[in-house]
Amino acid sequence: MLNLQVENEAPVVGRQVSPAAIFDTLQRYQQTMALKGAIDLELFTHIAKGVVTPGALALSCHASERGIRILCDFMTILGFLRKTDEGYRLTPESAVFLDKASPAYMGSITGFLSSERTLARFSDVAAIVRRGGPEVSSMQPESDWWVDFAEHMGPMVMMVAQMAANLLAQPGRRVRVLDIAAGHGLFGISVARQNRAAEITALDWKNVLGVAERNAARAGVQDRFRTIPGSVFEVDIESRYDLVVVANFLHCFDIPTNIGLLKKVWTAMKPGGLLATVELVPNEDRISPPIAASFSMNMLGATNGGDAYTFSEFDRMFRAAGFDGSRMQLLEPTPHALILTAR
Amino acid sequence: MLNLQVENEAPVVGRQVSPAAIFDTLQRYQQTMALKGAIDLELFTHIAKGVVTPGALALSCHASERGIRILCDFMTILGFLRKTDEGYRLTPESAVFLDKASPAYMGSITGFLSSERTLARFSDVAAIVRRGGPEVSSMQPESDWWVDFAEHMGPMVMMVAQMAANLLAQPGRRVRVLDIAAGHGLFGISVARQNRAAEITALDWKNVLGVAERNAARAGVQDRFRTIPGSVFEVDIESRYDLVVVANFLHCFDIPTNIGLLKKVWTAMKPGGLLATVELVPNEDRISPPIAASFSMNMLGATNGGDAYTFSEFDRMFRAAGFDGSRMQLLEPTPHALILTAR
Repeated sequence: MLNLQVENEAPVVGRQVSPAAIFDTLQRYQQTMALKGAIDLELFTHIAKGVVTPGALALSCHASERGIRILCDFMTILGFLRKTDEGYRLTPESAVFLDKASPAYMGSITGFLSSERTLARFSDVAAIVRRGGPEVSSMQPESDWWVDFAEHMGPMVMMVAQMAANLLAQPGRRVRVLDIAAGHGLFGISVARQNRAAEITALDWKNVLGVAERNAARAGVQDRFRTIPGSVFEVDIESRYDLVVVANFLHCFDIPTNIGLLKKVWTAMKPGGLLATVELVPNEDRISPPIAASFSMNMLGATNGGDAYTFSEFDRMFRAAGFDGSRMQLLEPTPHALILTAR
Repeated sequence: MLNLQVENEAPVVGRQVSPAAIFDTLQRYQQTMALKGAIDLELFTHIAKGVVTPGALALSCHASERGIRILCDFMTILGFLRKTDEGYRLTPESAVFLDKASPAYMGSITGFLSSERTLARFSDVAAIVRRGGPEVSSMQPESDWWVDFAEHMGPMVMMVAQMAANLLAQPGRRVRVLDIAAGHGLFGISVARQNRAAEITALDWKNVLGVAERNAARAGVQDRFRTIPGSVFEVDIESRYDLVVVANFLHCFDIPTNIGLLKKVWTAMKPGGLLATVELVPNEDRISPPIAASFSMNMLGATNGGDAYTFSEFDRMFRAAGFDGSRMQLLEPTPHALILTAR
């Protein structure tokens, strides 16, 4: 039986101490599942078309009015809808990112971020903490985990990739770009779109490169898009690159592994070349800002040595691999940062 | 393939529109699972004992240092720990509610609130919304769902029950109390502890009453604790009660069902008797305050007709069943409210 303690006197509890946050947190999974459900039902897309009452939305979404009303209220509480006397309205965020007719629609990210198999990774966090990592790392060679990632996360990454390319593309200059662990390929592709003289080499496992090649063809840059299939830790890389992009990759490994990788990157670069690292970078306290700092939990659940590294940790890794100092630039309003390091 | 839209120009996105909230919400399930994991590991209990560094906590929790560090940082981000130069510290909330040595410890609530089978109810919210309810309602007769509830949720309810009893017990006065859908029994038991002349009758399914009877025995009130096994919708109830408690029950049903139930409650009460309803009651806008308003999503996932009702909806139900007007009192700092209705 549980520690009900009904035999004792009432615990002395300060007026301001409430169990509300605990109660709330233990049910936050419903926030993930409900937003995913709303995207599945194309709720935001229907509201964008002017269908705004529970009754009308129930018809459009082929759903029950009770379910739609409760879901719309819940989305309002979470900040993804507004509730007015006339019906529900999109917020600026849901209009840009959750309406299928928007060019920045990113509903597909649920297929990776909160897919059944991603959620399954976190079904027993105590066991993960005991082990210090997942039962099976997501870093297995040729894992289709990363095909899933590349196929679903593109729209989320697009904004980050475009902002990074604004800073990296050097339009008109002939630059050879190596995109390491390219995934969807969007970092290299974004540079190629902004600089018609840029040549991109995307390195990733063969199964993942299929996604990148399709995206390059859609962007019309396929004639300047080469690939190197394989693991960056194993393949040979020529010393020919002006710009190396390592986006959302170093967080997958421990520091010694990263230093080894960065030494290889150093040799692949021409003198005067630039290394561009894109990451979620927490402050030195590792507990702020919330989204970047929380990312370490993701790495605990998915990798055996990865982490959300601070800027000073990155800087030490780059120096240990032979690079000079780095500087960091936030890619706001996204939660990502770009770290620029000279060879 | 997905709507990557790489062939178009960059979407025009206002400076302040960020995908961060969407990214965050689609991963909030990790907050639930990590808090559950920290409770499983007795992390807060060890910190309360003065074990405060990742290395020392790893030994005490039989876990990895990497896992403990990341988990502690995550708990700090969520507000359940503080991070200092010397190590991690409990917050007032975690000291009162998450340290096993605290009389108000409520770690057991994970066994109901975020159990595997509770989570499974929300695995496909789109399907729930389409249907307008769960595949299988939690309101099946003799469902062990409610045994789970009674066994695990006591510590969470205890504070609410004690605060309600402060207002209801009328110490020294001989009152006959009917506790409908008593569950853990703590509402009636709390009245019995504060009023030695009170006689409690707990009504619930037979399997659930076993939990209530054990709790009554622990509280030393078993000689004033009778039971009526069965469904409140089916059993006969004598017209003899001065006080009827209906705690966290009306939210399980639709309004017509509740009016029928309340008519039966009316006949079970003596003239001048009091009906005490405990609920999570959102404001009339149904979208605030967040915890009470969000509770409707719980009811969508668990019941076919239930809801988080507003005060005006409750008041109309009481009046339709023959009661006079009601008044509501918040049980702060808990998220619950007590509605008092005269017969």
